[in-house]
Amino acid sequence: MRLAILGYGNLGRGIEANVALNDDMELKYIFTRRNPSDIKTSSNAKVVCSSEIETYKDDIDVLILCGGSATDLPEQTPKYAKMFNVVDSFDTHAKIPEHFDKVNSSAISCDKVAIISVGWDPGLFSLNRMISNAILPKGCDYTFWGKGISQGHSDAIRRIEGVLDARQYTIPIDDAINTIKDGKTPEFTARQMHRRECFVVVEDGADKAKIEQEIKTMPNYFEPYDTSVHFISEEELKQNHSKIPHGGFVIRSGQTGFNFENKHIIEYNLKLDSNPHFTSCVLLAYARAAYRLYQEKDYGCKTVFDIAPKYLINKNDDFLRKTML
Amino acid sequence: MRLAILGYGNLGRGIEANVALNDDMELKYIFTRRNPSDIKTSSNAKVVCSSEIETYKDDIDVLILCGGSATDLPEQTPKYAKMFNVVDSFDTHAKIPEHFDKVNSSAISCDKVAIISVGWDPGLFSLNRMISNAILPKGCDYTFWGKGISQGHSDAIRRIEGVLDARQYTIPIDDAINTIKDGKTPEFTARQMHRRECFVVVEDGADKAKIEQEIKTMPNYFEPYDTSVHFISEEELKQNHSKIPHGGFVIRSGQTGFNFENKHIIEYNLKLDSNPHFTSCVLLAYARAAYRLYQEKDYGCKTVFDIAPKYLINKNDDFLRKTML
Repeated sequence: MRLAILGYGNLGRGIEANVALNDDMELKYIFTRRNPSDIKTSSNAKVVCSSEIETYKDDIDVLILCGGSATDLPEQTPKYAKMFNVVDSFDTHAKIPEHFDKVNSSAISCDKVAIISVGWDPGLFSLNRMISNAILPKGCDYTFWGKGISQGHSDAIRRIEGVLDARQYTIPIDDAINTIKDGKTPEFTARQMHRRECFVVVEDGADKAKIEQEIKTMPNYFEPYDTSVHFISEEELKQNHSKIPHGGFVIRSGQTGFNFENKHIIEYNLKLDSNPHFTSCVLLAYARAAYRLYQEKDYGCKTVFDIAPKYLINKNDDFLRKTML
Repeated sequence: MRLAILGYGNLGRGIEANVALNDDMELKYIFTRRNPSDIKTSSNAKVVCSSEIETYKDDIDVLILCGGSATDLPEQTPKYAKMFNVVDSFDTHAKIPEHFDKVNSSAISCDKVAIISVGWDPGLFSLNRMISNAILPKGCDYTFWGKGISQGHSDAIRRIEGVLDARQYTIPIDDAINTIKDGKTPEFTARQMHRRECFVVVEDGADKAKIEQEIKTMPNYFEPYDTSVHFISEEELKQNHSKIPHGGFVIRSGQTGFNFENKHIIEYNLKLDSNPHFTSCVLLAYARAAYRLYQEKDYGCKTVFDIAPKYLINKNDDFLRKTML
């Protein structure tokens, strides 16, 4: 499989670093909006200006879109699904139906396969929510994130006047987790499920009390949560907070029986040293699926719900039944 | 969907108790090898002698086979896959390829859909092993079972002279779990991963020391494990050990990066009050998939690897993308 990526940020670099874990894949091109000669890569992939992408149509089996969900993917995925089989990690949950419809029109019209919203949430977490709901129709779902860095919340802090840099950790609250694992199914407020911990580097002479107040009262981002703020030096930030760990878990707590007398808990749990590395590995597995569906002429836009698991792995069906079933 | 079951043991009763959780399903028939008039059911399903099953061919969308893997299913599934869409929970891992081939021939020859080895292991655990391997090609797999009742091990104890009844709990060992969750990937012996705890009721005057010795040295079943034996009264067994809880978890510990510098842990964890109830719910979801694949004329034998997740749930694709992705 000949792969290419569009976008060379954390996610694109994750693809580059992990494509070799899959011996049926090769990363041939890195498309970028920047000047290709400014880009220093870590592989033999050719760096090409994204304006030339269409000329590579016949030399790429799947294009993995590594841009952001806010402005890149809503425009890129429908556009490139007309030229390539594509996979993206579109993660604005509320806008997924609209994105799906646009991408589906493009892919169908040009006999291509597109898989959207691939990663771990949306993605693997969605898959587990859905399968658990299918098996335990009566029950409650809980999704916890963290402990991990939230890029969006870190960015929100960075926009405050006087702040030079920041990292925000989302941390699930043990009391809530233990309550659920005991088989109880309460409705939690946001504050009861997660807390937020911020490490902030400020300008010399900045008003720390004011910045802390501004963070803690920020609507949607921090106000609904218990938030702690630590002011640290730039050095300390680099030394202790330069990794991008994340994770989280999805729990379905369900009941069975004529009188709902039996409780069952299904938990799917991820602990990730590097969020972009793991996400890139999920994208690679679904890129394989996109290529196989294309070979079967099963065109159009798909999500994780539509794809038989066997398409994700580089093993034949006999081997899978013999070794993994 | 009009369902029927063949076999009315723990699993069959689980189906009967939980079919109503799915509002697109109805249990119409219970087929049994016993005298139907001897069977007391808890529902309105009609009890019919299994010898008459063929006459109900056109009145059943999916037949769920609730027999055992040792002698029932190897004969029943290939036989009934010629008359019905079927789902079974065949769990003799080593014989799955052979079972698959036989069932596939039957189903293909008569335009039926069969889904085999459905449950949680094989089944949901297999699905997670496979998907985790696809995403993290470099890594190690670990499967733990318990704490829960092993029917096979309980039966093995019951066959010892002087034993009236017994329950055997399989218990995963915390040290092993914690080592893996720390990101280490050792190779464990059987003894390092699980221990076995037995509650045994014996005849008056039985030689307890001899029975304990016989249990602990039983090859394959107990000899490779640290086993503890408790002699209790029949009353105590009924009071404290009459439920059939189970569970367990599958962990993939994988590495990513040019130098495998990032560790990632994927864990799938089940805690089940009732093993047969939960297994029956998995069978019901896959019965729905069998019926849908049949409507799409996608005949033949399938496993959990072959089935797109959306086929498992009673919701349309738009709703799934909007609410669960």
